[in-house]
Amino acid sequence: MQHLFDRLKAAAAPEWLAYTHHAFTNAMGDGSLPEAAFRHYLVQDYLFLIEFARAYALAIYKAPSLADMREASAGVAAILDVEMDLHVKLCAGWGLSPANLERATAAPEMLAYTRYVLDTGMRGDLLGLKVALAPCVIGYAEIAARLAAVPGALAEGNPYRVWIAEYAGDAYQQVAASARAQLDRLGARYATPAREAELVTIFREATRLEADFWEMGWRIKA
Amino acid sequence: MQHLFDRLKAAAAPEWLAYTHHAFTNAMGDGSLPEAAFRHYLVQDYLFLIEFARAYALAIYKAPSLADMREASAGVAAILDVEMDLHVKLCAGWGLSPANLERATAAPEMLAYTRYVLDTGMRGDLLGLKVALAPCVIGYAEIAARLAAVPGALAEGNPYRVWIAEYAGDAYQQVAASARAQLDRLGARYATPAREAELVTIFREATRLEADFWEMGWRIKA
Amino acid sequence: MQHLFDRLKAAAAPEWLAYTHHAFTNAMGDGSLPEAAFRHYLVQDYLFLIEFARAYALAIYKAPSLADMREASAGVAAILDVEMDLHVKLCAGWGLSPANLERATAAPEMLAYTRYVLDTGMRGDLLGLKVALAPCVIGYAEIAARLAAVPGALAEGNPYRVWIAEYAGDAYQQVAASARAQLDRLGARYATPAREAELVTIFREATRLEADFWEMGWRIKA
Amino acid sequence: MQHLFDRLKAAAAPEWLAYTHHAFTNAMGDGSLPEAAFRHYLVQDYLFLIEFARAYALAIYKAPSLADMREASAGVAAILDVEMDLHVKLCAGWGLSPANLERATAAPEMLAYTRYVLDTGMRGDLLGLKVALAPCVIGYAEIAARLAAVPGALAEGNPYRVWIAEYAGDAYQQVAASARAQLDRLGARYATPAREAELVTIFREATRLEADFWEMGWRIKA
Repeated sequence: MQHLFDRLKAAAAPEWLAYTHHAFTNAMGDGSLPEAAFRHYLVQDYLFLIEFARAYALAIYKAPSLADMREASAGVAAILDVEMDLHVKLCAGWGLSPANLERATAAPEMLAYTRYVLDTGMRGDLLGLKVALAPCVIGYAEIAARLAAVPGALAEGNPYRVWIAEYAGDAYQQVAASARAQLDRLGARYATPAREAELVTIFREATRLEADFWEMGWRIKA
Repeated sequence: MQHLFDRLKAAAAPEWLAYTHHAFTNAMGDGSLPEAAFRHYLVQDYLFLIEFARAYALAIYKAPSLADMREASAGVAAILDVEMDLHVKLCAGWGLSPANLERATAAPEMLAYTRYVLDTGMRGDLLGLKVALAPCVIGYAEIAARLAAVPGALAEGNPYRVWIAEYAGDAYQQVAASARAQLDRLGARYATPAREAELVTIFREATRLEADFWEMGWRIKA
Repeated sequence: MQHLFDRLKAAAAPEWLAYTHHAFTNAMGDGSLPEAAFRHYLVQDYLFLIEFARAYALAIYKAPSLADMREASAGVAAILDVEMDLHVKLCAGWGLSPANLERATAAPEMLAYTRYVLDTGMRGDLLGLKVALAPCVIGYAEIAARLAAVPGALAEGNPYRVWIAEYAGDAYQQVAASARAQLDRLGARYATPAREAELVTIFREATRLEADFWEMGWRIKA
Repeated sequence: MQHLFDRLKAAAAPEWLAYTHHAFTNAMGDGSLPEAAFRHYLVQDYLFLIEFARAYALAIYKAPSLADMREASAGVAAILDVEMDLHVKLCAGWGLSPANLERATAAPEMLAYTRYVLDTGMRGDLLGLKVALAPCVIGYAEIAARLAAVPGALAEGNPYRVWIAEYAGDAYQQVAASARAQLDRLGARYATPAREAELVTIFREATRLEADFWEMGWRIKA
């Protein structure tokens, strides 16, 4: 019996391919991505992280068990206390000040994906929320692992090697593996076949919105 | 295969019996309920209806299909546009003015059941919300049908015959039958065995809180 | 003292102009809008209406008074019981079957605005929700009134005259006037100056997302 | 200008007195509280903590600023990672095993207060949520400080000295002081006079439900 995440990917194969192999990601792999595109992405990713923390907070509120509450709480703390600081430092290396980040105008693609996740999460149970988050949480690990295997992707000359190494690294790969395992646990408890069809719709829409997030950066490339 | 509602009742049999055969209900059946007890109940039931409308509004927000949205929307409209007016008129017959109703202090038992329903509904999906509402929506039909069969319960001399006739009448029995059918439909789509165990907990707690609602009136009897 | 809605418009003047004078709207006014663009808009507007009903349901849940609950409940019923049927008929006239509507893929622009409204509404109070809805509810009345004054806009030869007449008509103008009045009432009760600054941000973002909704149709024009 | 918390207390003076001077608290101060009463309280307080963590998670989701998000996140982590363990240890000292805690039946008084807080929080903004939490967060500090001044309250012979010392201690007094300061900050941003009247209603109801929590234990005393 396949993992739930793999079943979701299979059911949304074209969307998943378009997202995980988006030109933006390939251009990070070979270092050809225009810096302006990456900078735009970085700024919106900062705003994204804030909403991401809200989504994990919702996961605490929704969690059916203490273990799930603690897992989500650790996620919120990791985002607010660690990842956001790392992100600010990463941005500084790209010439973006905290003020640049805080005063940034929210892009529609950032608003679209984050609010889709939050409304999906509020509307249903923890499983629906985690499925909406999966393209981001698990997808980034898959994308980075693919890019890390590109010859030269992690070489000194690639300005995007830090991003790739971060998400291809053991720590983040473990985060993604935990998220896959949690989907299996929640799916085993809560997913009837009829429900799984609804989860596929959520996964497909969320994946398309995540692909739009790359496209948002890609459009800046000129 | 039993109906979901019947499985829930069976799993919470002692709580269900304590609720549906509460002394308050029996005393409505034989007309012995002190009027002060009923008046207290009526006032809190007015406040209850407002929260009940909020719960049905939440059901619209949560509904996975247009048909479920329309059913819940009809429920909200029925409460706000019809039942509340009927309730105000019923209260007037018992000497309670609209001002008495609007200025009433919320009883803890009213707060407990309504907020339990609302939080349960917000936390999970439509099925969880409907299970939390079932002791009220379906239970009233069952209680009134039982009382209507008590000799003299519907006779002129019983001041509680209006209440009994209202909920034992065809119109309300049909509301309850629809609610039972919806539970079956939602259960068939969304209830795995593990989920059903969680629904039993919701049903049991909601039933206890509804029994407390009777007890709230009963304590006033002196 | 200005109306709250006018203060919000003034604070988001460039966004409001870009939204209310979008090329898509102008092309409805002079009848030059490609039919494919309008058809795409109609299909997404059908999906939009469903989420709109969810937002009004949330307004019932959030409402601080019975009057606000009843107003929102009437809104839900109008959408689910009247507007959706009208929309289906309008679509039929454009060659779009109910099946076309139900099987449509949600466009990111539709997801973005509706989920932004829903999350904003869930996060805060009724005032925030109503401000997020205002670009749609009040903006459509303003756009249609402007277009109706364009010579020939309501003439037989303009295929978009039905849309313009609908939203420029007395009935809808009254809906918008009520929404403006409600914003004033809610603002008077709940908006401190600090809060109003936050409402401006909501209004600005919601207006941009509504402009994107036009842009979504406009891109199809080729 | 008074602090918001002090204005709320003054507006709900009888309820506040009944809560903070409840017989249950006085009996902790002089050591006369029957152990069965305290045990019942401890078990329900364990269940309470879980819902309390959910309320703080909601505060993250609702927070209008990163600072508020981080404060609430620290609160969730403190509850789930520290307080619950301390509580389990405290309970062990009273002969209550983790199994006793996990299998406990939720008391209506626990359900009433926690769900009231959660629904109030979901319905409105962060300020409303924090006002609903205040009787607990700030009230415990006030009660314990009063009891600590009772001669003999902290003496070896009082089995309740640990509870009193915990909440009268500097660490918890500082938690309460921060909560008071946050209420002032949020009140200054979001509370018009009309809003403050609504906050008083929330505070009064929440205080009554917290008094019922003591009463719940007190009734066991026989």
